[in-house]
Amino acid sequence: MASLGCVAALCAAGGLCGRVARGAAGLSGRWLRRGYAVARAESAPTFGFLLDIDGVLVRGHKVIPAALEAFHRLMDSHGQLRVPVVFVTNAGNILQHDKAQELSALLGCKVDPDQVILSHSPMKLFVQYHSKRMLVSGQGPVVENARALGFQKVVTVDELRIAFPVLDMVDLQRRPKIMHLPRNDFPAIEGVLLLGEPVRWETSLQLIMDVLLSNGNPGTGLATAPYPHLPVLACNMDLLWMAEAKMPRFGHGTFLLCLEAIYRKVTGKELRYEGLMGKPSILTYQYAEDLIRQQAERRGWGSPIRKLYAIGDNPMSDVYGANLFHQYLKRAKHGEAEEQQAGSLQKQRLSATQSCASILVCTGVYHPQNLGSAEPFLGGMESPFHGHRDFSFRPELLEASYIVNDVNEAVQLVFRQEGWA
Amino acid sequence: MASLGCVAALCAAGGLCGRVARGAAGLSGRWLRRGYAVARAESAPTFGFLLDIDGVLVRGHKVIPAALEAFHRLMDSHGQLRVPVVFVTNAGNILQHDKAQELSALLGCKVDPDQVILSHSPMKLFVQYHSKRMLVSGQGPVVENARALGFQKVVTVDELRIAFPVLDMVDLQRRPKIMHLPRNDFPAIEGVLLLGEPVRWETSLQLIMDVLLSNGNPGTGLATAPYPHLPVLACNMDLLWMAEAKMPRFGHGTFLLCLEAIYRKVTGKELRYEGLMGKPSILTYQYAEDLIRQQAERRGWGSPIRKLYAIGDNPMSDVYGANLFHQYLKRAKHGEAEEQQAGSLQKQRLSATQSCASILVCTGVYHPQNLGSAEPFLGGMESPFHGHRDFSFRPELLEASYIVNDVNEAVQLVFRQEGWA
Repeated sequence: MASLGCVAALCAAGGLCGRVARGAAGLSGRWLRRGYAVARAESAPTFGFLLDIDGVLVRGHKVIPAALEAFHRLMDSHGQLRVPVVFVTNAGNILQHDKAQELSALLGCKVDPDQVILSHSPMKLFVQYHSKRMLVSGQGPVVENARALGFQKVVTVDELRIAFPVLDMVDLQRRPKIMHLPRNDFPAIEGVLLLGEPVRWETSLQLIMDVLLSNGNPGTGLATAPYPHLPVLACNMDLLWMAEAKMPRFGHGTFLLCLEAIYRKVTGKELRYEGLMGKPSILTYQYAEDLIRQQAERRGWGSPIRKLYAIGDNPMSDVYGANLFHQYLKRAKHGEAEEQQAGSLQKQRLSATQSCASILVCTGVYHPQNLGSAEPFLGGMESPFHGHRDFSFRPELLEASYIVNDVNEAVQLVFRQEGWA
Repeated sequence: MASLGCVAALCAAGGLCGRVARGAAGLSGRWLRRGYAVARAESAPTFGFLLDIDGVLVRGHKVIPAALEAFHRLMDSHGQLRVPVVFVTNAGNILQHDKAQELSALLGCKVDPDQVILSHSPMKLFVQYHSKRMLVSGQGPVVENARALGFQKVVTVDELRIAFPVLDMVDLQRRPKIMHLPRNDFPAIEGVLLLGEPVRWETSLQLIMDVLLSNGNPGTGLATAPYPHLPVLACNMDLLWMAEAKMPRFGHGTFLLCLEAIYRKVTGKELRYEGLMGKPSILTYQYAEDLIRQQAERRGWGSPIRKLYAIGDNPMSDVYGANLFHQYLKRAKHGEAEEQQAGSLQKQRLSATQSCASILVCTGVYHPQNLGSAEPFLGGMESPFHGHRDFSFRPELLEASYIVNDVNEAVQLVFRQEGWA
């Protein structure tokens, strides 16, 4: 049985362990549904939270005190979450399970892997590629991550390098010392997964280019390089992020920028993504919305979730993404929605969600003195657009619905809005 | 005494060891000049050769047979070169001395380091930066190379990384395990030297950006990032080059492309080069012209060198560069010359050189079937411009003065043109 939320103790079946139901859409006293033990809750929530992690709940390896207060508020007296909550991070070079464990330890409550959305989590939806032979780029548990997402045939950049030793020539020390016969027994690569920033960018950039230009057969020189090229699924387009250093560090978006620049220069054409996910992409918010709904169902909350609140510290990913999704929801409501993500497998679903509000906190990359720029600190330069090439710069999408000091204030604000104590 | 050319044996002073003088501008019978023992030569040459190395003289570690024949033709019976010859390569991650030794072994004759022009050799001219504290990027003997070029205060990317451990964050395994106090005892960097493609591009790209955005103090976050930024001297803008693999490999130009793309995206402004050298830059050809003239002077050839012949295998660097220099010479002749290289220290010199012809050989990246594209093999795509951003695409500059099979045919052609046997 998957546990959901911060379960201090499961209620004894039939016991009244929730608070008295309140609000309009109450569905209290439901004991078991879909195999889950469910507390007799207060009113069933009609809203849910999308929580960013770094800069909102934790900073480096330390929990932000306001996060502990917020979770105290979010839990009922039995340690169960009172509302659906998902954790939405743009991290990718980590396992979902490990991130959940890390959060559990930091927040002092059990976080289920099903509540954690990594930047590549929506790749689970791209089932048509799960049986294809995919080159995977990133670091850390890339193979485990790709398999957990559903990809059955995964080739790492290092495996490709070893299979074709004459491809990776930048490092003079790693160049092959002996001549190698070209091999033709290596099955063709059928797509590329970019899960996170790799190490030795020159190697990954070169081998990804080789795969794209050779239609998956990097040992050969094709008569005609294909275009459109093989499908590329990528996640985490964050250009920069804040760590200990006083200036921002390169994120996976910087790696993607290099790949896009090289592809454009070499071929004269644009690199295309079959899917581009992680905040601020709509795909990630659709995925989060799905998980929120499933969570509510599992908890036996019968009222549809109508409002989402996305709490984050980064205007470019958290605020921009939430606002973009809000606009998508508004268009969907008026029957104007169209699939914005190339290759998205999301069908036009019958969603009850009507809005997604963005709440910006000041415990991470965003500081009030940057109000004018709504950009992470960049040494006082005027703010160029640090979003991804495929997201046009719309300044109005950088404006948060609310700006508060921290996540605890954010939760208080939402509870007030929703008429919850 | 520096040896010049392929000296099998120095002539005994006063001995008639050259062939009988022939041609128009003879200056035979000159025995000693500027301390050099000089053979009684045939007519003093009024032309010189700029020889590319990879794809013209050698392929990988093997000499191209036609190169041995060409050198047989270029030498007199005493193993002395009959005309001035310099070797112009875009390689940079190697010492001039080592390249000369490598060539000597391959060609079976003594090549002097003074005859070898690496892509960064013209940095010797940028004396105003030689006493500045320069960050140097590349691999192999970067410090030795920078010092040999005249730079007295050199800081490597690795030294900077060790001094500021919180800057290099991409590799999860190399991230600092403990907190580091920011240090303020590290003297400011005053410029950047890009000598060749480094290893771990993410590290060099990040630290170069940190130095540029912080005005040389990467431990701090500046209130205002300076623009123009610190001076950047770069060499070898080759985007791609041919090795064993069937498709071209990344050159230093690909690294520069990434740096330019990141700088533009992060700052909204263009990265500027104080100097950009290596073929096809005019600076490199001016430098080669100087060496050719000095070589002729040392050999006691009194006639001015009027014609240069540049033999290469790469239309984009060898042909484009030679043609660009030829146009520069034509404008200079008509008093229209202007310094095209930003920051070039070259004064308007009184040059006797009137022309620079480009001779394309088919033993390297260029193959006759690519005649239409005049580009290295790229899988049949239409040819996008693979030259550097700062060199506008002028298709007429990709057209070689002559196309021949190999360097031996090239030398024969020139000798015929010049009325030499």
